[in-house]
Amino acid sequence: MTVKNTSPGICYIVGAGPGDPGLLTLRGRQCIEEADVVLYDYLCNPRLLDFATKTARCVFVGKNSQGHCLKQEEINRLLVKETASGHVVCRLKGGDPYVFGRGGEEAMALHAAGLLFEVVPGISSAIAAPAYAGIPVTHRGVTSSFTVITGHEDPTKPTRGIDWNEVA
Amino acid sequence: MTVKNTSPGICYIVGAGPGDPGLLTLRGRQCIEEADVVLYDYLCNPRLLDFATKTARCVFVGKNSQGHCLKQEEINRLLVKETASGHVVCRLKGGDPYVFGRGGEEAMALHAAGLLFEVVPGISSAIAAPAYAGIPVTHRGVTSSFTVITGHEDPTKPTRGIDWNEVA
Repeated sequence: MTVKNTSPGICYIVGAGPGDPGLLTLRGRQCIEEADVVLYDYLCNPRLLDFATKTARCVFVGKNSQGHCLKQEEINRLLVKETASGHVVCRLKGGDPYVFGRGGEEAMALHAAGLLFEVVPGISSAIAAPAYAGIPVTHRGVTSSFTVITGHEDPTKPTRGIDWNEVA
Repeated sequence: MTVKNTSPGICYIVGAGPGDPGLLTLRGRQCIEEADVVLYDYLCNPRLLDFATKTARCVFVGKNSQGHCLKQEEINRLLVKETASGHVVCRLKGGDPYVFGRGGEEAMALHAAGLLFEVVPGISSAIAAPAYAGIPVTHRGVTSSFTVITGHEDPTKPTRGIDWNEVA
């Protein structure tokens, strides 16, 4: 007898933080623990996968600037396929999903497919890396604002989005 | 017989995140669990204090824009006093300690007193609040940078630190 899984799937898009496993959030850990499938990036600390159950499938979908393993469109398709199958999917991304993490594109793909998803913010290395080096990104009387800029702009964009004169 | 506490104190300056207790980090929870004294802000979710031991002292040192409970200098002195007494102190701050949290001033006070401290980053509401509203602060092809600006500049500063023309 085969039992068809009729429960609706869900995809958690989780920010894994900047590398230190202690900087994962409590909610992020819950999502890994609940997952049937974990799709993780090369930026994630692999020790975070220890929170997954023994029966969970952990799939590396890492991208790096040298050789892309999976294209973003392929990752989007995989997320949709796994979630549509009724699985609890944890999409584990380095840093914060919405700070240069392309989490918005993944959320849009899930939304377009009519699937449930939840975005769990993560500690962004843009803030944590200076903190670990002893540098507050703001300090009363010294800095009142800060700007976070990508080091890798989409090369297919028609115009450059960063006005370096204004930034300086 | 009185036993003198000879172990060195330490102060953990912990970002409690934007309000949702699930957005506390694993390391942040550990720090609350280990603490003899927790000094917390009005921005912290009080449910986070449930992670403290039953014998821990939890002290509200909240500030708000209407009526300051404790001045920043008084908080700094309290942190130094409790840590110098050999306690494990957890300074629990809303958001991230270094993003408009004045954590830098507290770290400097502890450093000046020759005391141990550790800064544990937290999820900043500057990033998480837009995410919860469905707005990625960056989106490929649309935004390549973002700027975070305080809504409450130090009114004693001689000049305004924010150039609103440049920001726009």
